[in-house]
Amino acid sequence: MSKAKWLNEVKWDDGGLVPVIAQDAVTAEVLMFAWMNREALEITVQGGEAVYWSRSRRKLWRKGEESGHTQKVREIRLDCDNDVVLLKIEQTGGIACHTGRRSCFFNKLEDGRWLAVEPVIKDPKEIYK
Amino acid sequence: MSKAKWLNEVKWDDGGLVPVIAQDAVTAEVLMFAWMNREALEITVQGGEAVYWSRSRRKLWRKGEESGHTQKVREIRLDCDNDVVLLKIEQTGGIACHTGRRSCFFNKLEDGRWLAVEPVIKDPKEIYK
Repeated sequence: MSKAKWLNEVKWDDGGLVPVIAQDAVTAEVLMFAWMNREALEITVQGGEAVYWSRSRRKLWRKGEESGHTQKVREIRLDCDNDVVLLKIEQTGGIACHTGRRSCFFNKLEDGRWLAVEPVIKDPKEIYK
Repeated sequence: MSKAKWLNEVKWDDGGLVPVIAQDAVTAEVLMFAWMNREALEITVQGGEAVYWSRSRRKLWRKGEESGHTQKVREIRLDCDNDVVLLKIEQTGGIACHTGRRSCFFNKLEDGRWLAVEPVIKDPKEIYK
Protein backbone atom coordinates (compact mmCIF):
# COMPACT_ATOMS: atom_id res chain seq x y z
CA MET A 1 0.00 0.00 0.00
CA SER A 2 1.17 3.51 -0.77
CA LYS A 3 2.98 5.51 1.89
CA ALA A 4 1.82 8.76 0.36
CA LYS A 5 2.06 11.64 2.84
CA TRP A 6 -1.37 12.99 1.95
CA LEU A 7 -2.89 9.64 2.90
CA ASN A 8 -1.03 9.66 6.22
CA GLU A 9 -2.42 13.10 6.95
CA VAL A 10 -5.97 11.77 7.01
CA LYS A 11 -7.04 10.85 10.55
CA TRP A 12 -8.50 7.39 10.10
CA ASP A 13 -10.83 6.27 12.89
CA ASP A 14 -10.27 3.19 15.08
CA GLY A 15 -11.71 1.04 12.31
CA GLY A 16 -9.42 2.61 9.72
CA LEU A 17 -12.25 4.58 8.11
CA VAL A 18 -13.27 8.17 7.36
CA PRO A 19 -16.78 9.47 6.70
CA VAL A 20 -17.24 10.72 3.15
CA ILE A 21 -19.83 13.19 1.85
CA ALA A 22 -20.53 13.14 -1.89
CA GLN A 23 -21.78 16.43 -3.27
CA ASP A 24 -22.83 17.28 -6.82
CA ALA A 25 -19.99 19.31 -8.31
CA VAL A 26 -22.40 21.56 -10.23
CA THR A 27 -25.60 21.90 -8.20
CA ALA A 28 -23.90 21.43 -4.77
CA GLU A 29 -26.68 19.05 -3.75
CA VAL A 30 -25.57 16.52 -1.12
CA LEU A 31 -26.12 13.19 -2.85
CA MET A 32 -24.92 10.54 -0.42
CA PHE A 33 -22.80 9.66 2.58
CA ALA A 34 -20.49 6.68 2.86
CA TRP A 35 -17.16 5.53 4.29
CA MET A 36 -13.67 4.99 2.89
CA ASN A 37 -10.63 3.20 4.15
CA ARG A 38 -7.13 4.13 3.05
CA GLU A 39 -7.20 1.86 0.03
CA ALA A 40 -10.58 3.17 -1.14
CA LEU A 41 -9.38 6.78 -1.00
CA GLU A 42 -6.16 5.92 -2.80
CA ILE A 43 -7.98 4.05 -5.59
CA THR A 44 -10.51 6.88 -5.85
CA VAL A 45 -7.75 9.42 -6.42
CA GLN A 46 -5.85 7.17 -8.83
CA GLY A 47 -8.88 6.21 -10.91
CA GLY A 48 -10.94 9.38 -10.64
CA GLU A 49 -14.11 7.50 -9.72
CA ALA A 50 -15.52 7.05 -6.23
CA VAL A 51 -14.68 3.79 -4.46
CA TYR A 52 -16.05 3.37 -0.95
CA TRP A 53 -15.70 0.82 1.83
CA SER A 54 -18.91 -1.08 2.45
CA ARG A 55 -19.19 -1.59 6.20
CA SER A 56 -22.00 -4.12 5.82
CA ARG A 57 -20.25 -6.24 3.17
CA ARG A 58 -16.77 -5.51 4.55
CA LYS A 59 -15.23 -4.93 1.16
CA LEU A 60 -14.37 -2.22 -1.33
CA TRP A 61 -17.39 -0.94 -3.17
CA ARG A 62 -16.92 0.66 -6.55
CA LYS A 63 -19.90 3.01 -6.61
CA GLY A 64 -21.98 2.08 -9.64
CA GLU A 65 -20.52 -1.42 -10.04
CA GLU A 66 -24.04 -2.85 -10.17
CA SER A 67 -26.19 0.16 -11.03
CA GLY A 68 -23.87 1.82 -13.52
CA HIS A 69 -24.29 5.00 -11.49
CA THR A 70 -20.61 5.76 -11.12
CA GLN A 71 -19.29 9.01 -9.70
CA LYS A 72 -16.59 11.01 -11.47
CA VAL A 73 -14.58 12.86 -8.86
CA ARG A 74 -13.94 16.51 -9.67
CA GLU A 75 -12.51 17.68 -6.36
CA ILE A 76 -11.54 16.25 -2.97
CA ARG A 77 -11.66 18.19 0.26
CA LEU A 78 -10.62 17.36 3.81
CA ASP A 79 -12.02 19.11 6.87
CA CYS A 80 -10.27 21.10 9.59
CA ASP A 81 -9.76 18.04 11.79
CA ASN A 82 -8.51 15.93 8.87
CA ASP A 83 -11.13 13.30 9.64
CA VAL A 84 -13.95 13.90 7.15
CA VAL A 85 -13.69 13.85 3.34
CA LEU A 86 -15.89 15.79 0.91
CA LEU A 87 -16.06 14.66 -2.71
CA LYS A 88 -17.37 16.95 -5.42
CA ILE A 89 -18.62 14.60 -8.06
CA GLU A 90 -20.39 14.24 -11.36
CA GLN A 91 -23.15 11.67 -10.89
CA THR A 92 -23.59 9.33 -13.84
CA GLY A 93 -27.28 8.87 -14.65
CA GLY A 94 -28.19 11.62 -12.21
CA ILE A 95 -29.07 8.98 -9.61
CA ALA A 96 -26.95 8.45 -6.49
CA CYS A 97 -29.47 6.58 -4.33
CA HIS A 98 -30.27 2.86 -4.46
CA THR A 99 -33.96 3.81 -4.24
CA GLY A 100 -33.69 5.36 -7.72
CA ARG A 101 -33.71 8.92 -6.43
CA ARG A 102 -31.21 11.61 -7.25
CA SER A 103 -30.06 12.04 -3.64
CA CYS A 104 -30.16 9.73 -0.61
CA PHE A 105 -31.42 12.63 1.52
CA PHE A 106 -35.01 12.54 0.36
CA ASN A 107 -36.75 12.25 3.75
CA LYS A 108 -37.74 15.63 5.09
CA LEU A 109 -38.90 16.24 8.64
CA GLU A 110 -42.32 17.91 8.50
CA ASP A 111 -44.62 18.28 11.48
CA GLY A 112 -42.95 15.43 13.34
CA ARG A 113 -42.89 13.01 10.40
CA TRP A 114 -40.28 11.98 7.85
CA LEU A 115 -41.79 12.51 4.40
CA ALA A 116 -40.20 11.29 1.16
CA VAL A 117 -40.20 14.52 -0.81
CA GLU A 118 -38.02 13.63 -3.80
CA PRO A 119 -39.28 11.62 -6.78
CA VAL A 120 -38.07 8.17 -7.81
CA ILE A 121 -36.41 8.80 -11.19
CA LYS A 122 -35.93 5.15 -12.07
CA ASP A 123 -37.45 2.00 -10.58
CA PRO A 124 -34.75 0.13 -8.60
CA LYS A 125 -35.96 -3.07 -10.30
CA GLU A 126 -34.85 -1.53 -13.56
CA ILE A 127 -31.55 -0.36 -12.08
CA TYR A 128 -30.54 -3.65 -10.41
CA LYS A 129 -31.87 -6.21 -12.83
CA MET B 1 -36.89 11.73 27.07
CA SER B 2 -39.38 11.96 24.27
CA LYS B 3 -40.79 8.79 22.72
CA ALA B 4 -41.49 10.60 19.46
CA LYS B 5 -41.89 8.18 16.56
CA TRP B 6 -39.72 10.28 14.22
CA LEU B 7 -36.85 9.99 16.70
CA ASN B 8 -37.32 6.22 16.91
CA GLU B 9 -37.13 5.99 13.12
CA VAL B 10 -33.56 7.28 13.13
CA LYS B 11 -31.08 4.40 13.18
CA TRP B 12 -28.69 5.38 15.94
CA ASP B 13 -25.30 3.65 15.83
CA ASP B 14 -23.92 1.44 18.62
CA GLY B 15 -22.83 4.57 20.45
CA GLY B 16 -26.30 6.12 20.11
CA LEU B 17 -25.13 8.64 17.51
CA VAL B 18 -25.80 9.67 13.91
CA PRO B 19 -23.47 11.56 11.58
CA VAL B 20 -24.78 15.03 10.70
CA ILE B 21 -23.91 17.17 7.68
CA ALA B 22 -24.58 20.90 7.96
CA GLN B 23 -25.19 22.61 4.63
CA ASP B 24 -25.82 26.29 3.94
CA ALA B 25 -29.55 26.59 3.21
CA VAL B 26 -28.95 29.24 0.54
CA THR B 27 -25.59 28.54 -1.15
CA ALA B 28 -25.71 24.73 -0.54
CA GLU B 29 -22.09 24.83 0.58
CA VAL B 30 -21.21 22.00 2.98
CA LEU B 31 -20.11 23.84 6.10
CA MET B 32 -19.33 21.17 8.67
CA PHE B 33 -19.78 17.61 9.84
CA ALA B 34 -20.59 16.53 13.37
CA TRP B 35 -22.55 13.99 15.41
CA MET B 36 -25.84 14.02 17.29
CA ASN B 37 -27.38 11.74 19.86
CA ARG B 38 -31.11 11.49 20.34
CA GLU B 39 -31.25 14.32 22.82
CA ALA B 40 -29.22 16.64 20.56
CA LEU B 41 -31.55 16.03 17.62
CA GLU B 42 -34.62 16.53 19.75
CA ILE B 43 -33.33 19.80 21.22
CA THR B 44 -32.29 20.95 17.74
CA VAL B 45 -35.80 20.44 16.43
CA GLN B 46 -37.44 22.01 19.47
CA GLY B 47 -35.18 25.07 19.58
CA GLY B 48 -34.50 25.55 15.88
CA GLU B 49 -30.75 25.88 16.42
CA ALA B 50 -28.17 23.15 15.90
CA VAL B 51 -27.08 21.23 18.99
CA TYR B 52 -24.52 18.47 18.46
CA TRP B 53 -22.93 15.79 20.60
CA SER B 54 -19.24 16.40 21.19
CA ARG B 55 -17.52 13.03 21.10
CA SER B 56 -14.29 14.44 22.54
CA ARG B 57 -15.93 16.27 25.44
CA ARG B 58 -18.73 13.72 25.76
CA LYS B 59 -21.45 16.30 26.20
CA LEU B 60 -24.04 18.27 24.28
CA TRP B 61 -22.53 21.08 22.30
CA ARG B 62 -24.71 24.03 21.38
CA LYS B 63 -23.02 25.15 18.17
CA GLY B 64 -21.91 28.74 18.71
CA GLU B 65 -22.06 28.62 22.51
CA GLU B 66 -18.52 30.08 22.64
CA SER B 67 -18.07 31.61 19.20
CA GLY B 68 -21.55 33.06 18.79
CA HIS B 69 -21.65 31.30 15.42
CA THR B 70 -24.98 29.58 15.95
CA GLN B 71 -26.83 27.75 13.20
CA LYS B 72 -30.51 28.37 12.52
CA VAL B 73 -32.03 25.18 11.17
CA ARG B 74 -34.20 25.66 8.09
CA GLU B 75 -34.72 22.04 7.08
CA ILE B 76 -33.86 18.56 8.32
CA ARG B 77 -33.35 15.57 6.05
CA LEU B 78 -32.71 11.88 6.74
CA ASP B 79 -31.06 9.55 4.24
CA CYS B 80 -32.39 6.36 2.65
CA ASP B 81 -30.93 4.16 5.41
CA ASN B 82 -32.23 6.44 8.17
CA ASP B 83 -28.74 6.71 9.60
CA VAL B 84 -27.40 10.07 8.38
CA VAL B 85 -28.93 13.51 9.00
CA LEU B 86 -28.58 16.56 6.75
CA LEU B 87 -29.29 20.00 8.19
CA LYS B 88 -29.94 22.96 5.95
CA ILE B 89 -28.90 25.92 8.04
CA GLU B 90 -28.39 29.64 8.18
CA GLN B 91 -24.90 30.24 9.55
CA THR B 92 -24.66 33.18 11.94
CA GLY B 93 -21.60 35.28 11.20
CA GLY B 94 -20.98 33.32 8.02
CA ILE B 95 -18.34 31.26 9.84
CA ALA B 96 -18.90 27.59 10.67
CA CYS B 97 -15.29 26.52 11.27
CA HIS B 98 -13.28 26.97 14.48
CA THR B 99 -10.36 28.13 12.27
CA GLY B 100 -12.38 31.23 11.37
CA ARG B 101 -13.22 30.01 7.89
CA ARG B 102 -16.65 29.83 6.35
CA SER B 103 -16.53 26.04 5.91
CA CYS B 104 -14.57 23.28 7.63
CA PHE B 105 -13.80 21.74 4.24
CA PHE B 106 -11.07 24.15 3.22
CA ASN B 107 -8.30 21.63 2.46
CA LYS B 108 -8.23 20.71 -1.19
CA LEU B 109 -6.21 17.82 -2.61
CA GLU B 110 -3.94 19.21 -5.34
CA ASP B 111 -1.04 17.26 -6.84
CA GLY B 112 -0.79 14.96 -3.85
CA ARG B 113 -0.97 17.70 -1.21
CA TRP B 114 -3.71 19.13 0.96
CA LEU B 115 -3.83 22.87 0.40
CA ALA B 116 -5.86 25.32 2.50
CA VAL B 117 -7.74 27.12 -0.27
CA GLU B 118 -10.32 29.11 1.71
CA PRO B 119 -9.54 32.37 3.50
CA VAL B 120 -9.68 32.89 7.26
CA ILE B 121 -12.49 35.41 7.68
CA LYS B 122 -11.87 36.12 11.34
CA ASP B 123 -8.89 35.31 13.55
CA PRO B 124 -9.84 32.50 15.99
CA LYS B 125 -8.20 34.56 18.78
CA GLU B 126 -10.87 37.16 18.14
CA ILE B 127 -13.63 34.55 17.99
CA TYR B 128 -12.73 32.67 21.18
CA LYS B 129 -11.53 35.43 23.44
